[in-house]
Amino acid sequence: MPTPQEKATVASVLAPEELGELQAHWRAANYLAAGQIYLRANPLLQEPLRPDHIKPRLLGHWGTSPGLNLVHTHLNRVIKARGLDALCVWGPGHGGPAVLANSWLDGTYTETYPDVSRDGAGMAELFRQFSFPGGVPSHVAPETPGSIHEGGELGYSLAHAYGAAFDNPGLLVACVIGDGEAETGPLAASWHADKFLDPVHDGAVLPILHLNGYKIANPAVLARIPEDELDALLRGVGHEPIHVTGDDPETVHRAMAAAMDRALDRIARAQRRARKEGATDRPRWPMIVLRTPKGWTGPHEVDGRPVEGTWRAHQVPLSDVREDVGHLRQLEAWLRSYRPEELFDAEGRPRPEVLACVPDGNRRLGASPHANGGLLVRDLPIPPLERHAVRVDAPGKELHEPTRVLCGLLERVMAATAGRRDFRVVGPDETASNRLEALYEATGKAWQAEFLASDEHLSRDGRVMEVLSEHLCQG
Amino acid sequence: MPTPQEKATVASVLAPEELGELQAHWRAANYLAAGQIYLRANPLLQEPLRPDHIKPRLLGHWGTSPGLNLVHTHLNRVIKARGLDALCVWGPGHGGPAVLANSWLDGTYTETYPDVSRDGAGMAELFRQFSFPGGVPSHVAPETPGSIHEGGELGYSLAHAYGAAFDNPGLLVACVIGDGEAETGPLAASWHADKFLDPVHDGAVLPILHLNGYKIANPAVLARIPEDELDALLRGVGHEPIHVTGDDPETVHRAMAAAMDRALDRIARAQRRARKEGATDRPRWPMIVLRTPKGWTGPHEVDGRPVEGTWRAHQVPLSDVREDVGHLRQLEAWLRSYRPEELFDAEGRPRPEVLACVPDGNRRLGASPHANGGLLVRDLPIPPLERHAVRVDAPGKELHEPTRVLCGLLERVMAATAGRRDFRVVGPDETASNRLEALYEATGKAWQAEFLASDEHLSRDGRVMEVLSEHLCQG
Repeated sequence: MPTPQEKATVASVLAPEELGELQAHWRAANYLAAGQIYLRANPLLQEPLRPDHIKPRLLGHWGTSPGLNLVHTHLNRVIKARGLDALCVWGPGHGGPAVLANSWLDGTYTETYPDVSRDGAGMAELFRQFSFPGGVPSHVAPETPGSIHEGGELGYSLAHAYGAAFDNPGLLVACVIGDGEAETGPLAASWHADKFLDPVHDGAVLPILHLNGYKIANPAVLARIPEDELDALLRGVGHEPIHVTGDDPETVHRAMAAAMDRALDRIARAQRRARKEGATDRPRWPMIVLRTPKGWTGPHEVDGRPVEGTWRAHQVPLSDVREDVGHLRQLEAWLRSYRPEELFDAEGRPRPEVLACVPDGNRRLGASPHANGGLLVRDLPIPPLERHAVRVDAPGKELHEPTRVLCGLLERVMAATAGRRDFRVVGPDETASNRLEALYEATGKAWQAEFLASDEHLSRDGRVMEVLSEHLCQG
Repeated sequence: MPTPQEKATVASVLAPEELGELQAHWRAANYLAAGQIYLRANPLLQEPLRPDHIKPRLLGHWGTSPGLNLVHTHLNRVIKARGLDALCVWGPGHGGPAVLANSWLDGTYTETYPDVSRDGAGMAELFRQFSFPGGVPSHVAPETPGSIHEGGELGYSLAHAYGAAFDNPGLLVACVIGDGEAETGPLAASWHADKFLDPVHDGAVLPILHLNGYKIANPAVLARIPEDELDALLRGVGHEPIHVTGDDPETVHRAMAAAMDRALDRIARAQRRARKEGATDRPRWPMIVLRTPKGWTGPHEVDGRPVEGTWRAHQVPLSDVREDVGHLRQLEAWLRSYRPEELFDAEGRPRPEVLACVPDGNRRLGASPHANGGLLVRDLPIPPLERHAVRVDAPGKELHEPTRVLCGLLERVMAATAGRRDFRVVGPDETASNRLEALYEATGKAWQAEFLASDEHLSRDGRVMEVLSEHLCQG
């Protein structure tokens, strides 16, 4: 929890103009997310909304989208301000509308799919194609620019984030974890991946635990325990949590900007200590706990029942919009509440204020080469297999352990990648029992927790990782 | 961490005679565990140990066994002293030698398998059959008396413990969790099962996190983080941890007895508050963190390398015993260090001092009817299926949702078991979306965390459990 001084920082960090720009970007992303769920025509609301502007079948997850949009807006801000190379893993991948909206705003969507132009015609296509026959999935998917994490099965976001950070010392990997996903086993185990992250040779992971209170139809556990208990849990897995809580957009924007700055300052300090000052203690990496209402800025009540801030906002908060004129009017009022005419010009292009926070070129989250393996992957230096062949002069006369033979090859690859660091072996503590221990002649076992004199082969920069979670190994 | 007053309790709780009895029971169990791994003859060491007394192939996990034995000895003590109905889930199920040893000591092994008598002949058979062709598995297995948890795949012990405690208000379920298993996803998610345990209608779960420092060939994460970090983590999942640390048997016996008493007092107080005084706040259930050396009381060094307290004690600490006379002599010295002649009479029967802590009849952990489903399971009151049949007068004319029809049946079963409470529905928050919401007419959704005014169907004693961990649901 922030000290009084830190609270003062929270209130003062953003100049009014920058606050306005962040608000505009976030409003635009929210508008585009809602538009994808509902509209097949009239994307800029240049006419009054009619039933035939609405998709015949309403699909998509609104509930998580405003929170993802908030994170994206604020990642844009710090990437631009600090010149970061960053990537974001979107754990609540059901919030496809948010990530698609942001990639359309930063221009990478149009660069990847030129038929979806960054103007009114493209916006119409962005809306139409979403979760529509022949269109794009409602989840964050491999074809979403900047994505390395499929949003279908919940549980692997944090493991994927660590995987991306290993051996990428210049990279910041943000990772949004939903409170639903946080209940899963793979995610719960992944918190301990910080014991394997080397602040010298690896990049940084910034977990953002997004508590919007509900999974599908039920409250989420981590959202319903006292804040001091949650804080203890997160400190117990090795983090310094920074809490951002609220439902007033201006307040939350200020707090989120301050939290991002604080987190990135701490990351920079931890990396500087390890890289320049020779510190070897495990950093307590920062993380952000973001509490905002589910379906924030959406319909507050529908048919007399609360929706914003409840599980009812999980998917489509207003249903039967083509049939129920009251719902249609409520949808129109909701969409107009973002004031699209202020956000987009007459041709539907985002106005400069909306794009002010967006970074340039490959710094855009949608354009990171780290999310596009084809740009960075190179062949491993694998020696000729013949060199490791077992010579068999006569049938049934030789006795060998196959994995020990394999390890001769792996050890050569491990040694040959010592400088480039793009090869690792992970396993559930079976490396030695599977006769692969010769690997330790080329590298050690990654370890950032306590060392004892009796330990063997443990090292801070090792490229064998042994953890008894096969989920984490897979991730 | 104990206050000075609590430390005073630790030192004073055991009378010297009782301490001696606990030590004797534990030494006997350790002797029997080591004997299973090594001996095929000469079980009481009535002759000097010779190579032909040793099994030709040495298998089994010694490392975890002394810790499991310690827990078993102390569970015996409190079950007997307090007249508890208890069950234990042995997460480090690889430690089969320990659980088999204890069930032979408490007599349930012989009652189940009369050819393995509780005397020298039976001890010889107990040793011979262990991990031997035609014998018994080296893990805790379904045929092990008192076992409901197969010790093969790590991860599910705590979920199984909660499963056993639900709707068994009079039952204490202890659960030993190894520091290896604690790294897995299913286990990491299971810590939050305390948010679903009703102190009124459910029994209690007492987790015992056993940190012996190593998984197979690597240190375990939770054993290598600072104690205050681990303490925060466990408080963060809702527990009050009680730490027991040491390698001096007498000190650890005293501390463990005090910790067990403190934990059971707290459990009794939490249940009394909820059941008699109407308290509705979620109890912070106690748990024990037990730090003892891996392979405790086994060979301290072998061939000049440390073994006790390291990963080298994981399985068989002394190998090649038939071939290496130095190892044979070291094994004999190790086995004789338990002074078997003081523990067993000339016929190999455990002496009264060894059995003094063992409870009677069905209170023995090996004999709990809760670990033997056949004794307690009864048919569910399922109404005639015909009553829920869908009438179809002509092909292709009826439209129904099958799960909604199924739910009619489930709701009847749920209603009919309201008093007996032996039916539950668990799921990853898909009950409503799978059209099973009519269940909520018969029961609520189990919940012990915070309640909000807008919540629907949540209740402390509900028998639908929704958590976004399919591992936990399975468990």
